[in-house]
Amino acid sequence: MKKVLITAFEPFGGEQINPSWEAVSQLHERMLCGFQVVAKELPCAFGDALTTLYAEMEALQPELIIAVGQAGGRADITVERIAININDARIPDNNGNQPIDEPIIPGGPAAYFSTLPIKAIVDGIREAGIPASVSQTAGTYVCNHVMYGLLHRLAQQDNKVRGGFIHLPYLPEQALNHPGAPSMAAHTVMLALEMAITIALRTEQDLRLVGGATH
Amino acid sequence: MKKVLITAFEPFGGEQINPSWEAVSQLHERMLCGFQVVAKELPCAFGDALTTLYAEMEALQPELIIAVGQAGGRADITVERIAININDARIPDNNGNQPIDEPIIPGGPAAYFSTLPIKAIVDGIREAGIPASVSQTAGTYVCNHVMYGLLHRLAQQDNKVRGGFIHLPYLPEQALNHPGAPSMAAHTVMLALEMAITIALRTEQDLRLVGGATH
Amino acid sequence: MKKVLITAFEPFGGEQINPSWEAVSQLHERMLCGFQVVAKELPCAFGDALTTLYAEMEALQPELIIAVGQAGGRADITVERIAININDARIPDNNGNQPIDEPIIPGGPAAYFSTLPIKAIVDGIREAGIPASVSQTAGTYVCNHVMYGLLHRLAQQDNKVRGGFIHLPYLPEQALNHPGAPSMAAHTVMLALEMAITIALRTEQDLRLVGGATH
Amino acid sequence: MKKVLITAFEPFGGEQINPSWEAVSQLHERMLCGFQVVAKELPCAFGDALTTLYAEMEALQPELIIAVGQAGGRADITVERIAININDARIPDNNGNQPIDEPIIPGGPAAYFSTLPIKAIVDGIREAGIPASVSQTAGTYVCNHVMYGLLHRLAQQDNKVRGGFIHLPYLPEQALNHPGAPSMAAHTVMLALEMAITIALRTEQDLRLVGGATH
Repeated sequence: MKKVLITAFEPFGGEQINPSWEAVSQLHERMLCGFQVVAKELPCAFGDALTTLYAEMEALQPELIIAVGQAGGRADITVERIAININDARIPDNNGNQPIDEPIIPGGPAAYFSTLPIKAIVDGIREAGIPASVSQTAGTYVCNHVMYGLLHRLAQQDNKVRGGFIHLPYLPEQALNHPGAPSMAAHTVMLALEMAITIALRTEQDLRLVGGATH
Repeated sequence: MKKVLITAFEPFGGEQINPSWEAVSQLHERMLCGFQVVAKELPCAFGDALTTLYAEMEALQPELIIAVGQAGGRADITVERIAININDARIPDNNGNQPIDEPIIPGGPAAYFSTLPIKAIVDGIREAGIPASVSQTAGTYVCNHVMYGLLHRLAQQDNKVRGGFIHLPYLPEQALNHPGAPSMAAHTVMLALEMAITIALRTEQDLRLVGGATH
Repeated sequence: MKKVLITAFEPFGGEQINPSWEAVSQLHERMLCGFQVVAKELPCAFGDALTTLYAEMEALQPELIIAVGQAGGRADITVERIAININDARIPDNNGNQPIDEPIIPGGPAAYFSTLPIKAIVDGIREAGIPASVSQTAGTYVCNHVMYGLLHRLAQQDNKVRGGFIHLPYLPEQALNHPGAPSMAAHTVMLALEMAITIALRTEQDLRLVGGATH
Repeated sequence: MKKVLITAFEPFGGEQINPSWEAVSQLHERMLCGFQVVAKELPCAFGDALTTLYAEMEALQPELIIAVGQAGGRADITVERIAININDARIPDNNGNQPIDEPIIPGGPAAYFSTLPIKAIVDGIREAGIPASVSQTAGTYVCNHVMYGLLHRLAQQDNKVRGGFIHLPYLPEQALNHPGAPSMAAHTVMLALEMAITIALRTEQDLRLVGGATH
């Protein structure tokens, strides 16, 4: 059976939960457009996260891979446009490592663009009444690390498997501890991710829609 | 039968919906703690809003009144502490009126404190995993106008009927048109309001909890 | 000689400086419109702040009093509209006291409106190219405490002495420790306060300008 | 004489001024570390901006090039880490063009990292008490366009000339029209840019300092 791999992260930065796993785990074994969704939790650790991801890709041979993570403070679902070849950790990862200005892949290209139809995904989620937008940066922490590592691996495979990254706001229960921070309900997030998978499977050519930022 | 009156507003400021009515209308005729909830939509207009409110209070003789409104841009459920005796409209109301620095009740006191157990309500909603906080200002528009008018009327009646005001974030579908704005799902909001009513009915003495602001 | 009293606060909340004293101290003994400006630093402590303020008022017999404080996180100069009769401390004051939901003046009115021409002050500061706005809440900490205590005292005196409160953003050097927080240069702030004093001295009747908030 | 080229932009997006030119123009012909600073205003237009930049680079043969632009809404000086190979205009440029998802250089690399010592610049500006940070995205508008085009040209030259981009907050007078937006005084900004040039000229190897983002 054809597979879709969707990954999430374990909690980090003092949080008890990670919204990505709360949402992604609900999609495990779901059938979408004839594909079986497989959900996998990654460690929030440089290196280990990619090791786990690559092993899962090897085992499953998925035709689409979407990695999902937490972007505490953002108000909407953000579909990442690009991953950059740098690890620059503001806080230590879950292994206690805090790389600063080190390349993810020494000698690798400076960046990879997502190969998901990011504009179509944003448009589809918004059509469903859920706030979403394109993000121009996935940061420089483990999320960006996984997105870059994923796209690097896919670029080497030279097949048509597509991949990318989606960031989620805090869940409401997390926002309790972050006064003034926006949040989004787990059910809403799950619907958005389900749509993202479906749209990615169905869309050959991305839409030409405004989604840029002046800075 | 004993009644609770919960009011909401019609849309204003170019919005197609108002989150307060979307949530409050779902509570209409609900039974809570032996009280029947009556939901009523108010016009978003200085004067008219209070006329409608007073007529409903007269007809129902409710033992608790909670007015609810939209606070676009806030990220959580905010329970208002105080209403002030001023109309100062940043935008015209739905009748096209835009009073500036006019008293709501000429000769009335400068302000009224909510008579709801605001700390207990905030605490209860947060216990359910929904972000909530005390707000130190209900603004100077129709929401504050209704809160002040409500508390002024209750102060004159000299009975034990309690009242106050709760502000809601945008709904997700509204946030589509306000990039970066936080939102909260209608179902989450409805649960929070249901708790607010229940807690207000059950709590004699408010809790002594931190809920202030340094500015 | 006729006097203007302008007060500021000592640092609080872990800060090394308070923008209010950095700016206000530069105005000490300045002559404005024939009035001598006297600058006074208040302790950031419930009770003590008012004791110091009242003593200074008694000694100087000023004809205008403007209290100034820090509102970390706000981006512009905010002229406060109203002070409310409550102490609700989110953090302990500099004496270690943390009153919760206690009246400032037991039996006092719920609130006092500023007797400064707040719209004219905002307008004048903005004319000079400096961001300013009316604020609908001075919080529930020592700033609001001083503003309420000041206006209560002035209301009892029944003379024409006017008073109010102005909040300032962080200084740039403070914002270093608050990532993403706005700040304003000390020189800009000093100019704004100088204008506030001048405008308050010259303006009998406040301007009728929009300055409200929808929430 | 050895030269430093520092560029700014003309106003765009309905603004009357651009903070970059207000600050950069004050540095014109300044001598710093034995280098003469040349300030140049670029059109805020895709293509034309690079044509003007390249002509100036050709004429001056500068040994350092820093492009500067406006990032309305940001609170501090942001030193950009990376430019990406995409034009995606949220609003039309000053020629009325609005490219969507088009490469800046067809076939060019996905991104270029700044060759400025970005951590050292941020650190030096902060040491002077001015808020500054590393930014992980220069957006997808004319600022990113110029940064990418600049770094692409420098990469082709294969000499040691360094280049990068710095974004500025609104000036206070601009923030008047953007309620709640942070701003920074022109004099503060000019000092920060002067330091950026000096540090870039003096620093061979960038500092190893935390400057990343979790998202």
